[in-house]
Amino acid sequence: MSLIQDTLAGIRPVDPALLKQAQARLDNKTKPIGSLGRLEEFARRFAAMAGTLEPETGKKVIFTFAADHGVVEEGVSAFPKEVTAQMVFNFLRGGAGINVLARHAGADVRVVDMGVDYDFGAVPGLIHRKVARSTANFARGPAMTRDQAVTAVEAGIELANGCREEGVAMVGTGEMGIGNTTAASAIIAAISGLPASKVTHRGTGISDEALADKIRVIQQALELNRPDPHDPLDVLTKVGGLEIAGIAGLVIGCAANRIPVVVDGFISTAGALIASELHHHVRDYIFAAHESVEIGHRFMLQRLGAVPILDLKLRLGEGTGAVLAMGLIEAGVKILKEMATFSEAGVAESLG
Amino acid sequence: MSLIQDTLAGIRPVDPALLKQAQARLDNKTKPIGSLGRLEEFARRFAAMAGTLEPETGKKVIFTFAADHGVVEEGVSAFPKEVTAQMVFNFLRGGAGINVLARHAGADVRVVDMGVDYDFGAVPGLIHRKVARSTANFARGPAMTRDQAVTAVEAGIELANGCREEGVAMVGTGEMGIGNTTAASAIIAAISGLPASKVTHRGTGISDEALADKIRVIQQALELNRPDPHDPLDVLTKVGGLEIAGIAGLVIGCAANRIPVVVDGFISTAGALIASELHHHVRDYIFAAHESVEIGHRFMLQRLGAVPILDLKLRLGEGTGAVLAMGLIEAGVKILKEMATFSEAGVAESLG
Repeated sequence: MSLIQDTLAGIRPVDPALLKQAQARLDNKTKPIGSLGRLEEFARRFAAMAGTLEPETGKKVIFTFAADHGVVEEGVSAFPKEVTAQMVFNFLRGGAGINVLARHAGADVRVVDMGVDYDFGAVPGLIHRKVARSTANFARGPAMTRDQAVTAVEAGIELANGCREEGVAMVGTGEMGIGNTTAASAIIAAISGLPASKVTHRGTGISDEALADKIRVIQQALELNRPDPHDPLDVLTKVGGLEIAGIAGLVIGCAANRIPVVVDGFISTAGALIASELHHHVRDYIFAAHESVEIGHRFMLQRLGAVPILDLKLRLGEGTGAVLAMGLIEAGVKILKEMATFSEAGVAESLG
Repeated sequence: MSLIQDTLAGIRPVDPALLKQAQARLDNKTKPIGSLGRLEEFARRFAAMAGTLEPETGKKVIFTFAADHGVVEEGVSAFPKEVTAQMVFNFLRGGAGINVLARHAGADVRVVDMGVDYDFGAVPGLIHRKVARSTANFARGPAMTRDQAVTAVEAGIELANGCREEGVAMVGTGEMGIGNTTAASAIIAAISGLPASKVTHRGTGISDEALADKIRVIQQALELNRPDPHDPLDVLTKVGGLEIAGIAGLVIGCAANRIPVVVDGFISTAGALIASELHHHVRDYIFAAHESVEIGHRFMLQRLGAVPILDLKLRLGEGTGAVLAMGLIEAGVKILKEMATFSEAGVAESLG
């Protein structure tokens, strides 16, 4: 059996009894029932994912997957593709948005080269999982071979397996790849059957005219490549990206290892969507970090059955929304673990 | 001149030039323009409030003001009023929700007795600013005298003045007071002219029947006491609460001292609303932490011109929403201060 099949076979739904036990414990804390709203949901779900009412949250890791996209040849991005590699160096030096926010949240950032069109050599700190130097231009043919898609997904699974061994308590997804909103829009269009115009937005900030072109490129790519919506790996192969494949693998791997995984915005959710289409119970292990400005995002979230935690009008990616949401999820878990009960505090429970 | 008048006279609008300079600095960071959404708004506003492009955020304090409410005699709460004092002890022992979340955010919690119906003696850690043992039942007459309202507001101002001396970078508001959603609903009804039924909700969790009673009590109190909507201190005197008065004073004091103040949910926003009605530019120094489940909250926020940062379905109070929002505001400020610029990182700015 392949690593992907093996990993999918190991995914179990979370135990509903644990959800109940966690809520019962929350209901005994010194506060009106349910008054901490979604923090209680985070705590309950995290406990059920981790399989314990005393889950650890200390060790938090964001994986920022980087790759280039052949489709940038079609003029779909406001930035030149060289920026992907330039930003990898920025991540490694600690100067990017994700670095600043991860330091704030007490999370590590790990940068993974899945397919950047640059030879990084032995640059320290980079995780080398390059499958190809960029995908092919999917406006002219498939983005990658199926073997490449499988290899990229497996790289993500292996990173999740490593997290289990290392004792990582919570994982976040992030990405960098000039042109990758085009791939993410194509993925949700392929899976949902929605027209490209409904799920395609401005990415890093293109004009009206460029947006119309981007929509046309995606629609043509779907007609040319005919990705099979019932075969998520085919969608990934035909119109995906190597960083998106890595994210899909990471999410599958986290679900199989019972590690809560916080999914960032539009691109990351495309990866999580591929994962969730491969196995229904992947969704049990996902937190949706935030509502992206990209218009295709809500269709992905609906399909995942996930309600985003934050709405801060973010559209940077890198994992920036995920790391902010991690702080709130951790806050919920601390409520479960640290808050006093009515009897411990000598507080009356109600007028009854 | 009284302390209140003196403090109001010291409030200045934030400098629009600083807002612009902060945004220009953000626009030079290695990210697409505006792509960090509201984090950029937080950074820009915080810098303008503090009067510097390099604001400190390290020292964060939440003030949790506690007081009892005579109107609980009317059966408006699901909890007995003894819980106010019991929760004060819980705060002082570090077991309450606000303590857990403040530890998570690296903020101090300071508990202020503004009017709890309990003699705390010399209990360590409590800030003693008791104006009365509970307000009077405003269903039968004014909640307090105008002198009491002034004294309570001044207590809040003095705490803010102390923060300036101490070098506190960011202040959050919180409260505990069984019955205080009734006072907060009465305040927004009095100021906006909306009927009590439009702005009154379930507080800590009362039944349909009790909610109908609560609405009737508020409507009667407004008819009996006739608070003057053009005199915020009269509203506070007639249908307010001593913790709400303390919050109003704290917010005024923060605005005068140029300290960003993060306003928690429904009750805290009632205090901030009184402050904002006293001086228009108070709002320049306010962050609205979250959208409360209480239905009257959005009318308050509209009047304040504030957009809440979080929507986590919280309805606990204490400052729990404020301290969570502080973490996000601080994240925004760190983006301004720590993120690399395009030239520092050697990243191309656009295709241009």
